[in-house]
Amino acid sequence: MLNFTFYNPTRIHFGKGQIAHITEEIPKGTRVLMTYGGGSVHRNGVYDQVRAALGHTKLTEFGGIEANPRFETLMRATKKAREVDAEFLLAVGGGSVIDGTKFIAAACHFQGDAWDILVNKVPIKSAMPFGTVLTLPATGSEMNSGAVITRTSTQEKLPFGSRYLYPQFSILDPSTTFTLPPRQVANGIVDAFVHVLEQYLTYPVQAPVQDRFAEGLLRTLIEIGPQTLAEPHDYNARAGLMWVATMALNGLIGAGVPQDWSSHMIGHEITALHGLDHAQTLAIVLPANLQYRRSAKHTKLVQYARRVWDLEDENEEALIDGAIDHTRNFFTSLNVPTRLSDYGIGSDAIPELVARLERHGMVKLGEKRDVNPKVSRDILLLAV
Amino acid sequence: MLNFTFYNPTRIHFGKGQIAHITEEIPKGTRVLMTYGGGSVHRNGVYDQVRAALGHTKLTEFGGIEANPRFETLMRATKKAREVDAEFLLAVGGGSVIDGTKFIAAACHFQGDAWDILVNKVPIKSAMPFGTVLTLPATGSEMNSGAVITRTSTQEKLPFGSRYLYPQFSILDPSTTFTLPPRQVANGIVDAFVHVLEQYLTYPVQAPVQDRFAEGLLRTLIEIGPQTLAEPHDYNARAGLMWVATMALNGLIGAGVPQDWSSHMIGHEITALHGLDHAQTLAIVLPANLQYRRSAKHTKLVQYARRVWDLEDENEEALIDGAIDHTRNFFTSLNVPTRLSDYGIGSDAIPELVARLERHGMVKLGEKRDVNPKVSRDILLLAV
Repeated sequence: MLNFTFYNPTRIHFGKGQIAHITEEIPKGTRVLMTYGGGSVHRNGVYDQVRAALGHTKLTEFGGIEANPRFETLMRATKKAREVDAEFLLAVGGGSVIDGTKFIAAACHFQGDAWDILVNKVPIKSAMPFGTVLTLPATGSEMNSGAVITRTSTQEKLPFGSRYLYPQFSILDPSTTFTLPPRQVANGIVDAFVHVLEQYLTYPVQAPVQDRFAEGLLRTLIEIGPQTLAEPHDYNARAGLMWVATMALNGLIGAGVPQDWSSHMIGHEITALHGLDHAQTLAIVLPANLQYRRSAKHTKLVQYARRVWDLEDENEEALIDGAIDHTRNFFTSLNVPTRLSDYGIGSDAIPELVARLERHGMVKLGEKRDVNPKVSRDILLLAV
Repeated sequence: MLNFTFYNPTRIHFGKGQIAHITEEIPKGTRVLMTYGGGSVHRNGVYDQVRAALGHTKLTEFGGIEANPRFETLMRATKKAREVDAEFLLAVGGGSVIDGTKFIAAACHFQGDAWDILVNKVPIKSAMPFGTVLTLPATGSEMNSGAVITRTSTQEKLPFGSRYLYPQFSILDPSTTFTLPPRQVANGIVDAFVHVLEQYLTYPVQAPVQDRFAEGLLRTLIEIGPQTLAEPHDYNARAGLMWVATMALNGLIGAGVPQDWSSHMIGHEITALHGLDHAQTLAIVLPANLQYRRSAKHTKLVQYARRVWDLEDENEEALIDGAIDHTRNFFTSLNVPTRLSDYGIGSDAIPELVARLERHGMVKLGEKRDVNPKVSRDILLLAV
């Protein structure tokens, strides 16, 4: 096992009716800026519940944070937060709203051009405290300290993070997810699945707890993914998905093990340039990535085949073939395609994607830092 | 899944050489009371490492906290902490030292007779901050907010806890455990194993993540338990054990599921009255408890048989028999006996044990609150 530091102070309130906990989490009279996205919080009733629980605060609202939250939008929210002298942010929505709110929390306390946080990785020294009400299980942002922000004008999508960006609390009520469109639920399943694989499918370091936890999350997604798409109002299936997605990226299964994340970084460029959903890019890049790097990931791929997919074969290469096929078929079964060509993107698009990876410094990706631009190009070629 | 709140702000520094993190965790000039047990911290070199990392503080020491830490000892430590106006406590040792230090942390801030915290469950309102350096993987106290304290004069062993009693940080260096006596390592394996079972072997509530995590911890203990006893200097086996023991009782696998804990409560009385090690009592009570309550726990026992012990049988009662046998044999294989009679305790001792459970209010134990004194008696009779 590798050395690690694990720290995660976010308080989780999980279950039906938990939105009411907001009242005790935020002191009376606090100046709150509530952030959200489009109209879904109105349609699913969450907006009304949150408003009711914020009756004791001085509330300002900022709606309209989009999927792949934009720097430009978030700077307007930051201006609003400063205007009303906000003391606390409350994000109500999915990963995009929460990621965006993390950026607002950082930008409010930042001196200078907040774009530097993203592009020049200037470390932040404090952030406005914030909480979240999660309505879309997928990114894990509700219990971690990272975020990804997009700048439309330059078509850039960049990650950042800080120890100051853990939510103080997050409310996870699975019944708020009953009305989600199937595409968002399927995306969430793929997103969580790939989050686990990025931390699991590397090389073995004798970390049995992390391996077993990762395998448990993957098996749970395989079991409940189809069920929750078929029966959106099955509370327990939605609850299982919501808790998997949180556990998939709260630091726990990645502590003490190597991590990859190359599929994410390559995928970010596809989203920024071609507008695909984040999970759609992962479903495309990940299978090709595993195929291309199967020899470096051999031991863990065999373990994945046996323990997650229950495959049996004396021939380890056949096990790996089976594991990659099962992974691809799982995504396809959720109606998430696994080829660039499914979106009309051909090999002619690859040079620009690779050029952008280079421009963003993404030239030594993966658990062994050996996913250079040439490897990224070859992975993308396999993904056409 | 049941509703839950999960919160755990302890920062974990895990791995070789991590004791040096103390220097950054405790500000310069802090008045620290360092607590420890007997001589083991001198023999394993931990004392010297900790002293070196505390060079920037104003340090006072309090050694001699015993296994099953005694109220009387801890009140002397509390007096010492007050005399030196301590601002921070640093526990160096196993679960007993950490549990004891939690009590000191609470007692230092408590008005009135601190015994009330234990016997009258008077809630504490604050506690002195503290950190830990763990040297014995077993109890999970390094990443939770509970403790168990013994009063020798009345032979009582009582649990308490508070949200104010999470360690600020805990250092887990597996190499500090190389020199542990085999009996303590075996006890730690049994303790962690039963911690998991108390939260897992109840009744199903469709909590797939918690189930998979619990099963992963149990399988890991089965795999590495014998290995770490056979090869005390196998770093990775000790690291696996240390992380399992922490995860077994940090709130994670118990969030959103029913919990039992009757084996623990019955076991506490055996320790208080007959002096057996904590884990020794669990190895005795747990198999008898599962046998006696096998029908109420039927579904989860079958799942346990299949997923943890890989048993196969059409007949579910046979699966349950097999699972209980395997559990008992696992403890025995670690040289931890599973019968009261192995310690010369006969059925004549049972009435007093049951009377003490009643005196301590332990009359509605278990996940369904149906382990009344008669059931406890019957379990103990099966355990002779």
